[in-house]
Amino acid sequence: MSAKILYGRPAASAILKTAELKSKELRKIGVVPKILVVAAGKSRPAQVYLKNLSRKCEEAKVILESAIFSDDVTEEEIKAKIAEAKRNPSIHGIMIYSPLPPQINADRIYEETPLEKDIDGMSSEAQGKIMSGGAFAPCTASAIIDLLDYYDINVHGKRAAIIGRSKIVGIPSALLLLKRNATVTICHTHTNDIDEIIKSSDIVISAAGSPGILNRRNLKRGGIVIDAGISLNSEGKILGDAVFDEAVEVCSMVSPVPGGVGALTAIEAIRNVVLAAENGKRSI
Amino acid sequence: MSAKILYGRPAASAILKTAELKSKELRKIGVVPKILVVAAGKSRPAQVYLKNLSRKCEEAKVILESAIFSDDVTEEEIKAKIAEAKRNPSIHGIMIYSPLPPQINADRIYEETPLEKDIDGMSSEAQGKIMSGGAFAPCTASAIIDLLDYYDINVHGKRAAIIGRSKIVGIPSALLLLKRNATVTICHTHTNDIDEIIKSSDIVISAAGSPGILNRRNLKRGGIVIDAGISLNSEGKILGDAVFDEAVEVCSMVSPVPGGVGALTAIEAIRNVVLAAENGKRSI
Repeated sequence: MSAKILYGRPAASAILKTAELKSKELRKIGVVPKILVVAAGKSRPAQVYLKNLSRKCEEAKVILESAIFSDDVTEEEIKAKIAEAKRNPSIHGIMIYSPLPPQINADRIYEETPLEKDIDGMSSEAQGKIMSGGAFAPCTASAIIDLLDYYDINVHGKRAAIIGRSKIVGIPSALLLLKRNATVTICHTHTNDIDEIIKSSDIVISAAGSPGILNRRNLKRGGIVIDAGISLNSEGKILGDAVFDEAVEVCSMVSPVPGGVGALTAIEAIRNVVLAAENGKRSI
Repeated sequence: MSAKILYGRPAASAILKTAELKSKELRKIGVVPKILVVAAGKSRPAQVYLKNLSRKCEEAKVILESAIFSDDVTEEEIKAKIAEAKRNPSIHGIMIYSPLPPQINADRIYEETPLEKDIDGMSSEAQGKIMSGGAFAPCTASAIIDLLDYYDINVHGKRAAIIGRSKIVGIPSALLLLKRNATVTICHTHTNDIDEIIKSSDIVISAAGSPGILNRRNLKRGGIVIDAGISLNSEGKILGDAVFDEAVEVCSMVSPVPGGVGALTAIEAIRNVVLAAENGKRSI
């Protein structure tokens, strides 16, 4: 078997195109969608993310404003910035770039983001609304769902394994899949029989950051792999959680890393800010 | 094998005793814990619940105030009552009795409850904080965890199946078990291979309301059953999800219905209102 490769780019283009059309409509009534990205420090991943987001925002006619604090920023400074953005009607979406420096409690920062501008769904209220709707889900979780949708993958009644239980990927992905009637098993670092669980799953969504955790030995023949793991090897190469060649050999569909889920995450923020501008708030 | 029966009553007594001690301490500083229960209609289950809660509140020296609306109550009337309780510093916990009549959107009602008084954890914010803490979890989910704790059942690394994905039992139980490092599979009406999942689970937490769904055939030998299902048969007898005799034969521990999880739920509300009075808010 040689799996179909689930590239993120065509899905991203389709979503971006829709966002652009909506954005143009909004401009006609004087609304220009605007994202505020809050970050701290000048790490290379942050710079890459912002550069990429900026380019995509231009395509979608969305304005990107960034507030890049220094590494020694205080929680109060970040909170003040968010409070300002909350009051500012020209900012429709707020995105907190993580990681934040160690002196910052990110969870407390997320809580400051008002629901209708929380385009990355990281506040408790947004997290609590993932299944019921009425909030944006975290961009990586939405990216996973949009990748499944783009390739017409129906999860109804399927066994899905989620590897990872973070509030940014694992838990929201699990809840979104449950909402679509998948039967979901959530695995993590304390899971004993992970190979057995992977083997019995029709769909594996992995956000472990453990290259090789999905391989020829444990993947189900004909299964589907959505790889949201990102690691760097010693040569600086980006690796997913699956041994790609082996997954392609065993499975029916595999998303690559890079170029799979990762190609969609920034786009989700743009889609969400346009929806936020359009409607105040909208569930995914 | 003949399973150990996990009766809820001794666990309930222990929790109630602690609540009573804390409540007495609070009285010394002039704080009298008080619950407001909001309900609508005069259904028999509601009356039984309230009568039972009232007796337990007396034991724990907690004041119970109830606002029982008629069946044709409007959302606005209920919201006004909650708003009043929110402002009233002598009310420490608010409990919305469900079901509410069909003209009421219960989810919208839950959102009105302020986090620190949300002793049944049904608002989105409380739901979003289940894993991180800082809110009360829904009483039935807490009852399940407290029953496990009382009988020293360690779920770390164990396979747990949750049957049901409601925000009142299934999802919060799943998240609380994940927090304790269990590997959790969430099953529901669209799960195809439920027998296989039950069979491979060390612990089954069932809130399906389907008598017989757990039985000799699908339970794991030596496994643990926490039965949170409640159904009435044609003779008015209360049934759990497990065929009790069969579960007892196959498993190592089984909670009965009635007298298992159900013996704890009202007690959780009392424990939570005392914690709310003590601390403003506290995670479970």
